[in-house]
Amino acid sequence: MKLGVVILAAGLGRRMCSALPKVLHPLAGKPLLAHVLDAANLIGAECRVVVFGHGGEQVQAALSGYDCRWVEQAEQQGTGHAVMQAMPAMTDMDRVLVLYGDVPLIEPETLQRLIAVSADTRLGLLTADLPDPTGYGRILRDADGCVTRIVEEKDATPAERAIREINTGFLIADRACLDGWLARIGNDNAQGEYYLTDVTALAAGEGVMIATAQPTCIAEVTGVNDRVQLAELERIYQRHAAERLMRAGVTLADPARFDLRGVLHAAPDVSLDINVIIEGEVRLAAGVRIGPNCLLKDCVIGPGAEILANCVIDGAEVGANAHIGPFARLRPEARLAADTHVGNFVEIKKTSLGQGSKVNHLTYLGDAEVGAGVNVGAGTITCNYDGVNKSKTRIGDGAFIGSNSALVAPVNVGAGATIGAGSIIARDAPPEQLTLTRAPQVTVEGWRRPLKK
Amino acid sequence: MKLGVVILAAGLGRRMCSALPKVLHPLAGKPLLAHVLDAANLIGAECRVVVFGHGGEQVQAALSGYDCRWVEQAEQQGTGHAVMQAMPAMTDMDRVLVLYGDVPLIEPETLQRLIAVSADTRLGLLTADLPDPTGYGRILRDADGCVTRIVEEKDATPAERAIREINTGFLIADRACLDGWLARIGNDNAQGEYYLTDVTALAAGEGVMIATAQPTCIAEVTGVNDRVQLAELERIYQRHAAERLMRAGVTLADPARFDLRGVLHAAPDVSLDINVIIEGEVRLAAGVRIGPNCLLKDCVIGPGAEILANCVIDGAEVGANAHIGPFARLRPEARLAADTHVGNFVEIKKTSLGQGSKVNHLTYLGDAEVGAGVNVGAGTITCNYDGVNKSKTRIGDGAFIGSNSALVAPVNVGAGATIGAGSIIARDAPPEQLTLTRAPQVTVEGWRRPLKK
Amino acid sequence: MKLGVVILAAGLGRRMCSALPKVLHPLAGKPLLAHVLDAANLIGAECRVVVFGHGGEQVQAALSGYDCRWVEQAEQQGTGHAVMQAMPAMTDMDRVLVLYGDVPLIEPETLQRLIAVSADTRLGLLTADLPDPTGYGRILRDADGCVTRIVEEKDATPAERAIREINTGFLIADRACLDGWLARIGNDNAQGEYYLTDVTALAAGEGVMIATAQPTCIAEVTGVNDRVQLAELERIYQRHAAERLMRAGVTLADPARFDLRGVLHAAPDVSLDINVIIEGEVRLAAGVRIGPNCLLKDCVIGPGAEILANCVIDGAEVGANAHIGPFARLRPEARLAADTHVGNFVEIKKTSLGQGSKVNHLTYLGDAEVGAGVNVGAGTITCNYDGVNKSKTRIGDGAFIGSNSALVAPVNVGAGATIGAGSIIARDAPPEQLTLTRAPQVTVEGWRRPLKK
Repeated sequence: MKLGVVILAAGLGRRMCSALPKVLHPLAGKPLLAHVLDAANLIGAECRVVVFGHGGEQVQAALSGYDCRWVEQAEQQGTGHAVMQAMPAMTDMDRVLVLYGDVPLIEPETLQRLIAVSADTRLGLLTADLPDPTGYGRILRDADGCVTRIVEEKDATPAERAIREINTGFLIADRACLDGWLARIGNDNAQGEYYLTDVTALAAGEGVMIATAQPTCIAEVTGVNDRVQLAELERIYQRHAAERLMRAGVTLADPARFDLRGVLHAAPDVSLDINVIIEGEVRLAAGVRIGPNCLLKDCVIGPGAEILANCVIDGAEVGANAHIGPFARLRPEARLAADTHVGNFVEIKKTSLGQGSKVNHLTYLGDAEVGAGVNVGAGTITCNYDGVNKSKTRIGDGAFIGSNSALVAPVNVGAGATIGAGSIIARDAPPEQLTLTRAPQVTVEGWRRPLKK
Repeated sequence: MKLGVVILAAGLGRRMCSALPKVLHPLAGKPLLAHVLDAANLIGAECRVVVFGHGGEQVQAALSGYDCRWVEQAEQQGTGHAVMQAMPAMTDMDRVLVLYGDVPLIEPETLQRLIAVSADTRLGLLTADLPDPTGYGRILRDADGCVTRIVEEKDATPAERAIREINTGFLIADRACLDGWLARIGNDNAQGEYYLTDVTALAAGEGVMIATAQPTCIAEVTGVNDRVQLAELERIYQRHAAERLMRAGVTLADPARFDLRGVLHAAPDVSLDINVIIEGEVRLAAGVRIGPNCLLKDCVIGPGAEILANCVIDGAEVGANAHIGPFARLRPEARLAADTHVGNFVEIKKTSLGQGSKVNHLTYLGDAEVGAGVNVGAGTITCNYDGVNKSKTRIGDGAFIGSNSALVAPVNVGAGATIGAGSIIARDAPPEQLTLTRAPQVTVEGWRRPLKK
Repeated sequence: MKLGVVILAAGLGRRMCSALPKVLHPLAGKPLLAHVLDAANLIGAECRVVVFGHGGEQVQAALSGYDCRWVEQAEQQGTGHAVMQAMPAMTDMDRVLVLYGDVPLIEPETLQRLIAVSADTRLGLLTADLPDPTGYGRILRDADGCVTRIVEEKDATPAERAIREINTGFLIADRACLDGWLARIGNDNAQGEYYLTDVTALAAGEGVMIATAQPTCIAEVTGVNDRVQLAELERIYQRHAAERLMRAGVTLADPARFDLRGVLHAAPDVSLDINVIIEGEVRLAAGVRIGPNCLLKDCVIGPGAEILANCVIDGAEVGANAHIGPFARLRPEARLAADTHVGNFVEIKKTSLGQGSKVNHLTYLGDAEVGAGVNVGAGTITCNYDGVNKSKTRIGDGAFIGSNSALVAPVNVGAGATIGAGSIIARDAPPEQLTLTRAPQVTVEGWRRPLKK
C-alpha cells in the first residue's frame, strides 16, 4: 500500500496579525508545518505534498530541509479545491491521507490507527468527542453505528446539534475514489467554496463503509488560528514533553516551567530546576543537574556535571563532574574536559579546557587551548582579535595565570608557567617560570583628591 | 450630565499584615487605588473624591499625581457614612458613581454600561451572578424582574439564599436623591454602621426603578482583603494583558510567565520568551525578540533587534537590528544605534554607541560617546569617576580598543585609533595610530612557586 | 502514653527509574523520608523506627542526622510483614502509629487528630473521601456508622465500589493488640504478601471500636510512585508554602513561581518577585524586596535592603538598606554592612564590606576586609590566590580604588588612600595618598592596522 499525504497549508491566518505565514509560526521552536511533516515522515508516507497559498516562497524556504512536493492553490476555494490541486501529484499512490499545516500536534500513532481501521474500506475519518461541539460539523450515524454523513452546525437540527462526535477534517481515502468524489463535489454554497467534507456524503451515497478513529487527546486535532491558541498548544506540547521525561527518570522541579524546543536525550537521574530551556539537540548524561533559568542549546553535558543557576550554554561540550556557573556563558566549540570548573561572569568560546582546569571569575577565553590543571585567575582576558584576524592562545598543563592578565594572541604560555597578576603577555612565556609585566608602584607625595566641580 | 465619582478607600486592611495602607499595595506595579482612579478618568468623571481613613497622608503622597479631592472618614462607620463624607464635594454633580479603592480591576466599559442603563432612572446597581454567592447580599426582584431590595446573607430565607445574583457594592445614583437617601439610612445594626446598601430599599420604597448592569468577568468586582487575593487578581490581570497582546500580534512563549507592570507598545511580530517583565513604558518595534528572563523598563527597542536571555534594560534606547545580551545591563541614557552588538557581562550607562559598534564582553561604559564602527575589546573599563566628579570618554568612529584597557576620563580616543591591549589611557590618543601603555615583559629566572603554608 | 512511630520505607520505587532509593528523592529540597521523620518528631513520638529495604545504607547515610532506629525488611512481603519487623523495637511503647516514607505531606495536625480520636480505643484509621476512589480499599461501616472492615477494589460489590471513603494506610493501634493481630494475618493471596490492612477486620471481629480521622487535604495521604506524582506533590507543597507566607504579610508576585526549599523567616512587607528560590535557612527583615530570578540560600538580609534581578546569594549577610544587583553573586562569608551597594557582575566571597561602601561593577573581592565609605572601581580584582595559598586584602575606610586595578594579596590599602586606575598594587599603599603603577603612554608613529589574513 502506497500512502500519499496531502498537507493543507494555504490558509491566510489573518488572526495571527503577522507578516509570517501562519504555518511558519513556531511551536516548541519548530514551524507548525514542520510538526505535520515530521508526523507524515514517521508514518512512512511515500509522498508528501504541501498545498501552499499565502507566502509560498517563504514557506518553501523555511522548510527546504524536508523532502516534499509543493503545489500552489492560487485562489482560496476551499479545502476540497485545495486537495484537488494535490491529486495530480498522487497518481502513483493507493491511498491519500489529508493533514493540516496548522494542526500541529497530530500524533503519528493516531494516524496509524486511522490508517489501520480504514484498511478494508475506501474512506476513514478522524472524529472526536467534544464536551462542547458548537461550531463543528457533527458525525451522523445510522442505527448500526455506521457513518452516514456530516452535518454542519448551521444545517443541523436540534437533535443533531446534541451530537458530540465531530469531524476533525483529517481523513484517509482510496486515491482513485477520492479523485472521483472530488470531481463531483460542488461549490454551490454561501462562500462559493469546495468542501472536502462533502466527499463523506458521496461515499456514503455509494454505500461505502466509512471507518472512524479518534485521537488520544483533543489537542491533536486542534488548529491554530491566533496566538492565544498557539500559546495553548505550546503549553500542551510542553506538558506532554515534561511528563514523558519524568516518566523516563528525569526530575523536573516544575513541569509547568520547562521548555523543550528540540530534542533532549536525558539519562536517568538528570535533574532540571525551574525555567530550564532546551533548544536544538541536547544530551545530558546520568546525574547531570541543571540549575534554574539555564538555557541549553546543542550541547553535551557529561555524567555528574552540575550547571548552576543562570547559565547560557550553546554548542559546547562539558565533561564529567564539571562545575559550571552560576552566570557562565559557554559558546560554540567550548570543550571542557572532566572536572573543570567555570565560574561566574565567564565567557568561553572556541576553547578547549583540559581536565581539572579552573576559570572561576570574570574571564573571557576565546580561541584558546588550555591544558589540564590550569588555574586562570579572575579578570583574565584572551586578546584573540586584533580588529581583523583571530589568533590562538595556548596555555600548557599546570600553568597559573595571575588575575587581571591579558594574553595577547598569538601567544603561548608554557606548561607550569606562572603569569604575574595584571600582566600583558604579548610574547611567549617559558614553562615553569614566572613571567610578568609590571610598572613600578609609586606613591605620589602631596597629592590631593579632586574637589567637587 | 455631570458625573462625580466617590472612591471608598478608608478600609484598614488588617489582613494584609502591612505597614502600607491596603489601597497602596501594588497590582501590576501600580497601587490598587491608582487602578480605580484610572478607571474613573477613563469614563470622563468630572470630579473624583477619595474617602480615606487609615494612612491618609501616605495615600495622598503616593497618588499625588492624580487630580482628585481627598475627604477624610475619621471614624469607620460604614460605607454609607463614607459616602456621606464625600457628598459635600459633589454638590455640582448630577450623578454620583461609587467605586472602591480595593476593587482594582473594574473595567471602564462595565462602568459605562452601568451609566448607560441607569440614564433614565435614579439608581443603578452593578450586580453579578456568582456560582457560589455565599456571604454576599442577594438581589431580590419582583415578578416583573424589577429589583425590590437587597437582602443580606444573615437575613435571607433559604429561597433567597438560593439566589445567585449578588450586590457588588458599585452603584450610580442621582446626586440629589442620594443625598436624601443617605440622610435617611440608619445605623441600628450589630456593627452600628451606616450601610450604603440600604439606599436600595429606600429607592425601591419610593417606587424608583432600579437599573442593573453586570461586569464581563467576576474579577472586576472582586476585592482585595489579603495578599492571597491580591496575588489572584494580579494573575487575572496578567492573563488578560497577555491575551490582549497575543490578539494584537505578539507571541508569548508562555502567557502564564509574563508580567506587565506598566504600558507595552508592541508592534506585530514581537516575540517574548518566558519570564519577561515589562515595567514603566516600553516600546518594541516590529520583529523585536526578547529572550527569557529579561526585565525591560522605560525603554525603546528598534525593529528587528534581538535581546538575548537574562538582560536588564532600564531607560535605554536600542536601535534597529541590534544584538544585545545575554547578560547585558543597559542603564538610563544608554543610546545604542542600529546594528550595535552588546554582549555578555557588559554594563552601559549614559553612553551613546554609534552604528555597528560592538561591545561584546565584560565591559563597563559610563558617560561615554562612542562613534560608529568601534570595537571595544573584552574587559574595557571607562574610568568615569574620580571619587567626586564624573567625566566623559569620547571614542571616534572606527576606533579599536584593545582588551582589558582602562580609559581614564576625561579622555578622547581619535577616529580610527587603536589602543593596545591592557593599556591605561589617561591622555588623548590621536586618530589612526596605535597608542598604548606597556611595561616590559620579564621572565624571572630561578623563581619558584610558593609553597603551601 | 508512649507513642512509637513505624515508617515504612522499603518500597523499591521502580517507576522512579532511578539509582536513588525512592524515599531519598527530594521534595522541597528535602528527602521524602525526612518530611515524614519531621512529622514524627513534631507529634512527639518517643521512638521512630524506619523499615528499609532497597538501598538501606544510602538511606541511612542520607538521614544520619535523624534520631531513629533502622530495621531491615530483607524480603518484600507486604506492609503487614514490614510492620512486624519493627515491632520488636516497639516493646516499650503503648501505641504504634504507622507512617509511609513515600507519603511526605502528612500534616502533624492530622496525625494529632488521629491520635486524639483513637485515645479511647485500640485502633484508629486515617480515611479520606475521594471524588474518584477507584483502586483504593473502601471503608465499610454498619448502620451506626461503625467501621466493620476494609474491602479491596477487586473484592468489592458494585454498591461497595460506590463508597467514596477509602483507606489511606495510616493507622494507629494499641501496641499489644497490634502484636496480636499481626501474628494472625496471613499471606494467602495472589501476591503472597501480608497486608497491614487485614488488622482492621481482625480488630472489628474482636468487637474493637475503630476510630477514624480524615486529613485536611488529599495531598497529605498521596504517595509518590513516579516523578510525575513527585512533581505534583512538590507543587502542592509550594502552593501551601506560598499561601502561608502571603497570609503572614509577604507579597509574592506570583505564588506559582515561588520555591521554598528550606525555611524562610520573613518579616511583614517583604516582597518577592517572580521565580525566587529560597534554600536552607533564610531571614528577610521588614521591607526587604527580592527581585526576579534570585536564588537565596542560608543568608540574612537586613531591613529595607533591596536585591535586584538575577542575584545568587549563598551564606552571606546583607545589611539594612543595602542595594544588591542585578547580577550580583554573594558567596559564603560575604558580610555587607548597612547602606552598601553591590552592582552588576560582582562576586564577593569571605569579605567584609563596611557601611556605605560601593562595589558597583565587574569586580571580584575575595578574602578582603573593606572599611566603610570605600569606593571600589569597576573591574577591580583582589588577587587572593597564588595557586597554593589564599591571602588577605585590607582596605581602610574611605579609600578609593581606581578602576581595573589588581590588589595582590597580602596587601593593605590605607584609609583614605587613592589607587590610580589600572594599577597592580603588590605592596602596601599608604593612607591618604595616591598610589599607582603606570607605564608611560606611547603613540607608535607609522603603525598600520593588521591586514586580513
